[in-house]
Amino acid sequence: MAQSELIDRYGKLMSKCKDYTIFQSIGGLIQWDMETKMPPGAFNLRSQQLGLFSEIEHKMATDPEVGTLLEKIEADPDHNSLSELQKRNVYLVRKIYNEQTKLPEKLVSETEKQKVISYNVWKKAKAIKDFGLFKPELTKVFELKKQAAEILMDVKGVRTKYDAMIDYYEPKMTEDVIAETFGELKRGLIPIIEKCVNGTTKPDRSILKRAVPVAVQQEISKSIANYIGYDIASEKARGRIDETEHPFTNGYYDDVRITTHYFEDDFASSIFSVLHEGGHAMYEQNLNREWMYQPVGAACSYGFHESQSRFVENIVGRSGEFWSYYLPELKRITGAALSNVGLEQLFRAINVVQPSKIRIEADEATYSLHIIIRFELERDLFAGKITVGELPQAWNQKYMDYLGVEIENDSEGVMQDVHWSQGYFGYFPSYALGNIYGGQIVNKLNQDMPQWRESIANGRFQVIREWLTKNVHSYGNIYDPLDLLCRITGDRINSRHFIEYLDEKYAKVYGY
Amino acid sequence: MAQSELIDRYGKLMSKCKDYTIFQSIGGLIQWDMETKMPPGAFNLRSQQLGLFSEIEHKMATDPEVGTLLEKIEADPDHNSLSELQKRNVYLVRKIYNEQTKLPEKLVSETEKQKVISYNVWKKAKAIKDFGLFKPELTKVFELKKQAAEILMDVKGVRTKYDAMIDYYEPKMTEDVIAETFGELKRGLIPIIEKCVNGTTKPDRSILKRAVPVAVQQEISKSIANYIGYDIASEKARGRIDETEHPFTNGYYDDVRITTHYFEDDFASSIFSVLHEGGHAMYEQNLNREWMYQPVGAACSYGFHESQSRFVENIVGRSGEFWSYYLPELKRITGAALSNVGLEQLFRAINVVQPSKIRIEADEATYSLHIIIRFELERDLFAGKITVGELPQAWNQKYMDYLGVEIENDSEGVMQDVHWSQGYFGYFPSYALGNIYGGQIVNKLNQDMPQWRESIANGRFQVIREWLTKNVHSYGNIYDPLDLLCRITGDRINSRHFIEYLDEKYAKVYGY
Repeated sequence: MAQSELIDRYGKLMSKCKDYTIFQSIGGLIQWDMETKMPPGAFNLRSQQLGLFSEIEHKMATDPEVGTLLEKIEADPDHNSLSELQKRNVYLVRKIYNEQTKLPEKLVSETEKQKVISYNVWKKAKAIKDFGLFKPELTKVFELKKQAAEILMDVKGVRTKYDAMIDYYEPKMTEDVIAETFGELKRGLIPIIEKCVNGTTKPDRSILKRAVPVAVQQEISKSIANYIGYDIASEKARGRIDETEHPFTNGYYDDVRITTHYFEDDFASSIFSVLHEGGHAMYEQNLNREWMYQPVGAACSYGFHESQSRFVENIVGRSGEFWSYYLPELKRITGAALSNVGLEQLFRAINVVQPSKIRIEADEATYSLHIIIRFELERDLFAGKITVGELPQAWNQKYMDYLGVEIENDSEGVMQDVHWSQGYFGYFPSYALGNIYGGQIVNKLNQDMPQWRESIANGRFQVIREWLTKNVHSYGNIYDPLDLLCRITGDRINSRHFIEYLDEKYAKVYGY
Repeated sequence: MAQSELIDRYGKLMSKCKDYTIFQSIGGLIQWDMETKMPPGAFNLRSQQLGLFSEIEHKMATDPEVGTLLEKIEADPDHNSLSELQKRNVYLVRKIYNEQTKLPEKLVSETEKQKVISYNVWKKAKAIKDFGLFKPELTKVFELKKQAAEILMDVKGVRTKYDAMIDYYEPKMTEDVIAETFGELKRGLIPIIEKCVNGTTKPDRSILKRAVPVAVQQEISKSIANYIGYDIASEKARGRIDETEHPFTNGYYDDVRITTHYFEDDFASSIFSVLHEGGHAMYEQNLNREWMYQPVGAACSYGFHESQSRFVENIVGRSGEFWSYYLPELKRITGAALSNVGLEQLFRAINVVQPSKIRIEADEATYSLHIIIRFELERDLFAGKITVGELPQAWNQKYMDYLGVEIENDSEGVMQDVHWSQGYFGYFPSYALGNIYGGQIVNKLNQDMPQWRESIANGRFQVIREWLTKNVHSYGNIYDPLDLLCRITGDRINSRHFIEYLDEKYAKVYGY
């Protein structure tokens, strides 16, 4: 009798989760439309729609009935009769419910308002290269986030305020683990970068500047999507590709859409965007179908998401094997423009290592250093070791120390990214964690399927996708990221394999 | 004190209306996406999204707090201190609230389920031309609607069940008024059609079959949109054009989107679609901006909406004046394909009168007869004078009597339209009412602005649009349709002016 009550409550909780999940998927659609199709004059109406939407979403997430169900389920003496999966679902609902209910309403609404202000001031300050303008608004949003972090430290049971921030994106990850792993990463990357930069081989990127008309690049996008098995064309298609300034992925299971951008004088940009976003999209599409609408039916973390996008973009897309298969196809589509490009030449051109100032333009080797810098600054900010006002100088110093580049103004320095203006502290580490997870995952793939690179060269990406689905996607959110990583690779987090992978590749590119 | 309580309650009611209106506009977006951009594999997810959406929408519409606010406002001794506008808003909320709350939940949910079944069976039955298959499901949906109509008769205080149905689309309109007006219309149309069909002039439609590539037709759409001032291109654009099998308009004030379809061998089809949907769109866009999010900030009725779309499509778009301006532009865009087309030749080709079997392919003169047939059948159905089973025979007889065409099977007869399968009884009359209102409106325009046709010929559609906005659009939903019509034209509803307008035009086309 008691047990059937438990099952009944669990069922009710899952039914509420289903509604919440479906509602969020509608929110995704509204966002997608705003970025891709919305007429510009609709901006104010859309703000109203988004405001109302968030309000309803928040009401659903903080529904007192959810709180009551959670308490009764957690306190039920038969609680252990729930399966591991059911317990995980309850755990995940509790996590979101706490995150949404434990912060004072006033703090939440003030933060929301400040985000809009800080974002707008950031845009202006970046345009006129004036950190002084941005500083007070960044300070406000940081102080509000710090207040939230202080409360969430207890709620989440984590050691530091920064850990509470990281946990939003990478559950159970800590700044200590990241610091150790990023330390190893930095120590591994710097000599590789030096070997590349100081070597005698100087790969030539000029072929990537050859003009390819946008319409032709759209054909390439379709063909790339087809290669990786991201279906946008058939009657069962569950995705589509549109165009935006900044590429992104948006969707849930059966409706996962990506965007890309086209530059006539940089055809590779859209190719790697489609590979990257396609990697994100396939993760969402290939989650365990039986878990649809349940909390476990979601990606594990931001870092894991990045591991999948970077796997397809870099580990596959920047490999010689991929291009040995795909270059003929690319030539067929582009005609004269690329007819005399050689495989070796292209492979080197897309793997140039060059320390630079802007994160989103960074190559695969230097990218993680951009992230490490942001991580160190965020950690020191939340620990009170530096102030918002000291950020520009600290930023510039680290760029000189780690990347050897001199930042000339704050728009190409500390104000280059949007994240902080919107209070997304703790988000940046996920990007480099994605690289690290990816390195460990490819190491495991090397063991499981030593011929995987040949498969790529033969155009059979499908076997890799199936392996990724079986070993990563289908786990959904059943484990926290470090547990999932261990489950997949049998190992704890480490940067070794990512460094090995890079070193092997760059030895080929730069012939060191 | 008491009055401030009234104001306070009115404010609360309007705040709830605002949320409801914004939420509905999100629903519009979901529908638009489903018809235009959604990947086909997302169908089931979308059904879940729509189901949840309707549930929340219904909850908002039937919120008991709305009921309480309405009761207190209506019973308030200071009620008369509300402005006419405020009273109208309260009246309109009450109307929707009653429509949503007075029907038993069971009846509503059964009807929703039956609609899905009837629709699916209709598709199948139409494909295999078997009314026998459709009949039981149409009967069920009709019986459920009749039950609803019986309850709503009292709620709405109308004389007949059919009046209760009509009132959804054309508030306060009655079958008696429609019967009288349609009678006049039929008596006027038949001799005009006879003069056209039996005349010696036989306009030639063959030029409309000339091949114009889809990409060129898309250019034409943009140019037509530009002509009528439906902005889809500027930084302030509040609309856009996409492609669907059946053209439609969807949106609210600052985000009103239309669709069209392109047939290589029928370029005129998309031109008239864009004009038609553009007419709908501009109505929504040009509603009184001060009333946005209030019940009065909406179109008056389905019939008035059709009056605006048909005004732009037919009264403007099929006029010699429009083409005297636009034909050179069309030739510029289409190049060789239409270079030798004459103005007179084109004007006649797009104004051919030819009685036919299919409503959506009908010309401007015979179209209303298709509607009159449907009206008479619906009225007789709700009055119990005929049964669902007798519909095919009655349909075929009327098509022979009014249009002189012989219906060979029920797929080109009684099953040609989707409306009845979804329970949309009372909807059809709006189409012909739109023609009738349009005739009265153009008569008023003739008085107000005798040179309006010259303006069109000079490419200055703007003056017409401004006149329509001032005289129709900006009234929103402040009056019921018959009152609005009287307000605009100073006259009660009559078919005279529409008939005059047609007679004048066809005298030119057919030279009678």
